[in-house]
Amino acid sequence: MNKIFVKELSNYYEKEIEFQATVDNIRNLQWVQFVILKDSTGKVQMTVEKNDENKKLNEIVNSLTIDSTLKVKGTLKKAPKVKLGGMEIIPTKIEITSLSEEEKPFNYNDLENVKLDTRLDNRFLDLRNERNSAIFKVQSLLTKYLREYLYNNNFMEIHTPKIIGAASESGSEVFEIKYFDKKAYLAQSPQFYKQMAMSAGFDRVFEVAPCFRAENSNTSKHATEFTSFDVECAYINSYEDVMNLESEMITYALKKVKEEMGEEIKRIFNIDIVVPKLPFPSMRLSDIYKELEERYGYKVDKSETTDLTTEAEKLCLKLAQDKFNHQFIFVTDFPADKRAFYHMRDKDGKLQGYDLIWNGVEITTGAQREHRYEEIKKNAQSKGLGEDVKFYLEFFKYGCPPHGGFAIGLDRLTMLLLNIPTVKEAMFIFRGPSRLNP
Amino acid sequence: MNKIFVKELSNYYEKEIEFQATVDNIRNLQWVQFVILKDSTGKVQMTVEKNDENKKLNEIVNSLTIDSTLKVKGTLKKAPKVKLGGMEIIPTKIEITSLSEEEKPFNYNDLENVKLDTRLDNRFLDLRNERNSAIFKVQSLLTKYLREYLYNNNFMEIHTPKIIGAASESGSEVFEIKYFDKKAYLAQSPQFYKQMAMSAGFDRVFEVAPCFRAENSNTSKHATEFTSFDVECAYINSYEDVMNLESEMITYALKKVKEEMGEEIKRIFNIDIVVPKLPFPSMRLSDIYKELEERYGYKVDKSETTDLTTEAEKLCLKLAQDKFNHQFIFVTDFPADKRAFYHMRDKDGKLQGYDLIWNGVEITTGAQREHRYEEIKKNAQSKGLGEDVKFYLEFFKYGCPPHGGFAIGLDRLTMLLLNIPTVKEAMFIFRGPSRLNP
Repeated sequence: MNKIFVKELSNYYEKEIEFQATVDNIRNLQWVQFVILKDSTGKVQMTVEKNDENKKLNEIVNSLTIDSTLKVKGTLKKAPKVKLGGMEIIPTKIEITSLSEEEKPFNYNDLENVKLDTRLDNRFLDLRNERNSAIFKVQSLLTKYLREYLYNNNFMEIHTPKIIGAASESGSEVFEIKYFDKKAYLAQSPQFYKQMAMSAGFDRVFEVAPCFRAENSNTSKHATEFTSFDVECAYINSYEDVMNLESEMITYALKKVKEEMGEEIKRIFNIDIVVPKLPFPSMRLSDIYKELEERYGYKVDKSETTDLTTEAEKLCLKLAQDKFNHQFIFVTDFPADKRAFYHMRDKDGKLQGYDLIWNGVEITTGAQREHRYEEIKKNAQSKGLGEDVKFYLEFFKYGCPPHGGFAIGLDRLTMLLLNIPTVKEAMFIFRGPSRLNP
Repeated sequence: MNKIFVKELSNYYEKEIEFQATVDNIRNLQWVQFVILKDSTGKVQMTVEKNDENKKLNEIVNSLTIDSTLKVKGTLKKAPKVKLGGMEIIPTKIEITSLSEEEKPFNYNDLENVKLDTRLDNRFLDLRNERNSAIFKVQSLLTKYLREYLYNNNFMEIHTPKIIGAASESGSEVFEIKYFDKKAYLAQSPQFYKQMAMSAGFDRVFEVAPCFRAENSNTSKHATEFTSFDVECAYINSYEDVMNLESEMITYALKKVKEEMGEEIKRIFNIDIVVPKLPFPSMRLSDIYKELEERYGYKVDKSETTDLTTEAEKLCLKLAQDKFNHQFIFVTDFPADKRAFYHMRDKDGKLQGYDLIWNGVEITTGAQREHRYEEIKKNAQSKGLGEDVKFYLEFFKYGCPPHGGFAIGLDRLTMLLLNIPTVKEAMFIFRGPSRLNP
């Protein structure tokens, strides 16, 4: 593990170093050869004068192609005139560790006229683009700090099964697996299992894992497989505790991401990360429709007001900004009958759950869960759920603390943070109804 | 998020608190009621004197069952005579937030005579057992610190697809999915995709995610779904860099786990965590068989010496201890033709890979990968791999740095750390050929 990264080079002035990197560019001039080398942390210039002594090195550089990888021995010199960090490597030995073919499917530094499908077909090249690889640096950092907030608050990580015996929540939109001589299914979410952890006394859990949805729809927001950041927390007093937890977690992570990559994000994506103010604003669904009409003349048929329409979601950004000077807004008081059977209703039937809208897109559904055995059984029955949820109902028979939680789609969160037009670009590898490769 | 945990209670002496917890035990005496309350961090006593003033509270305690959950208002008092932390809660209000049924499928505090299958059927109860829940606290902590080591060393996290279009490595032992009108498969490992990240210039990546193997075998070490900790690292010089990386990562994590949970692990599992010394010892496969025969009279047929037999794996613990005073041992120089086509061979055909044995069980296969296009193409052809790996071979056509990596089964690692007899207990929920529930 002795790889020296570009960002660490300034510790090695006037020293003999061994340096591995990828060829970013080559300028072969009359008297000198400049080779720009890069790794994931930056770029540096290697300078080879053309002379008798360097004959062998000059020949190697002549044979080089862009994207080849090198192992170089040489000295790192201060070179104030060199724009890249004011330094250059003067090599004594160059070894080509892999030689790239010259003709590529496309130029990954200029993707403007390359079709998204061509890019996704050749994702390994597409991700060499600086912007595209930065997306995943940000995603990794974001995940790290979302987790860190939870570790700091007594949460533990669990790993729940993705192969399940019954098509639990609905039966629709589930992928079927040939499981030896039986049928099995791919989990749509870890919902039942993170609640099992509550019954087991784990108190506070999270999971970052794939979820699978067999939706045959092609939108910029949907994928058949995505990474879900799931959280569940016991001994809460209400769904407002869950909202507070989620908003604090997101705020913590955004602050940290801004500190560490804010400048890079500004440079590459032209985005100033806004660290949100706490608490996040919250409005009831019916009040939102009222204000959207009053403020922006947005009117929908009453039948549509049981949920946020896509257009209403978008307008929520404007509303959150105009009314609260905020990018986030919680929406509460959805009609209970439209929501999952495991969301709690209070004694008046009012749903104890919420959606969170960020930049005009829903990123979360959260709720206090129904933890009372008789109530959850009733809820399940009223949705016509029987044998398939029997194992789940058992969790609540022998004591289960009041609890609640939420899930965030990590890819969607990344997409919104960096203002990326489609979730296909915010996933390392996208999966949709008509995309199974690479 | 105002839940006070048991471990934090000593900050609240003589204060009015609201406290939520689960009933661990009830002692209803003539003049007083003791209720032991627990959460995931410990236990505390609630004391209710029997008198007129407490009549309502006394009645509530009379109706209580073990495992019910409570919300209590009261004062935390110092009580030096109370063995549990020298404190007690004197309640003014008790609310039962969930009431457990009295008769349970089994007593989770005494599992000695409960069949493993019964326990797994009722996993939510089984995990209330102190030892069983501690397994997952340790697993969470271990994962946290394995990740932390990687973050500290410039690694980023990726999320690769679990639904794949082709049964990549072999075709056998892969689960088939009905993917709309097509067939798809569940990924056995993220191998090809973490190598794609190398080709994309991500330099250092890891992933913690489920892997799926359709092996119809019932052993204490196998599961059809398990959590894999996968690592891949570019610009290495040899597979020894990979071995160093892995041993440093494991050592870092074990040290941290020992610091944070060493005493609890000692108390519950009677295990002293040994922080291994660096570097880990390493031996060639043929030398191991030679020494196993010389030292312990272990002899196998020559045909079996192309890999470690299960018995030889077990004896490796003895060998590692006797020869190196170590719990870990790397095994190198496996016959190249028995190993995956993507492991590098040197110019003499020698395999550039290894296995890592801990406590007599293989926990990792690692290797430098073949990153040279012509070589990897040849290797694939020699294994009869064609169309299915075509997309993979593309990764190496346009420059790809030398790289290597490894994978650790997280459940197996947990099992070995805590000396648990079967991996079924080291997974939150086990999946095997005949187990799909809960």
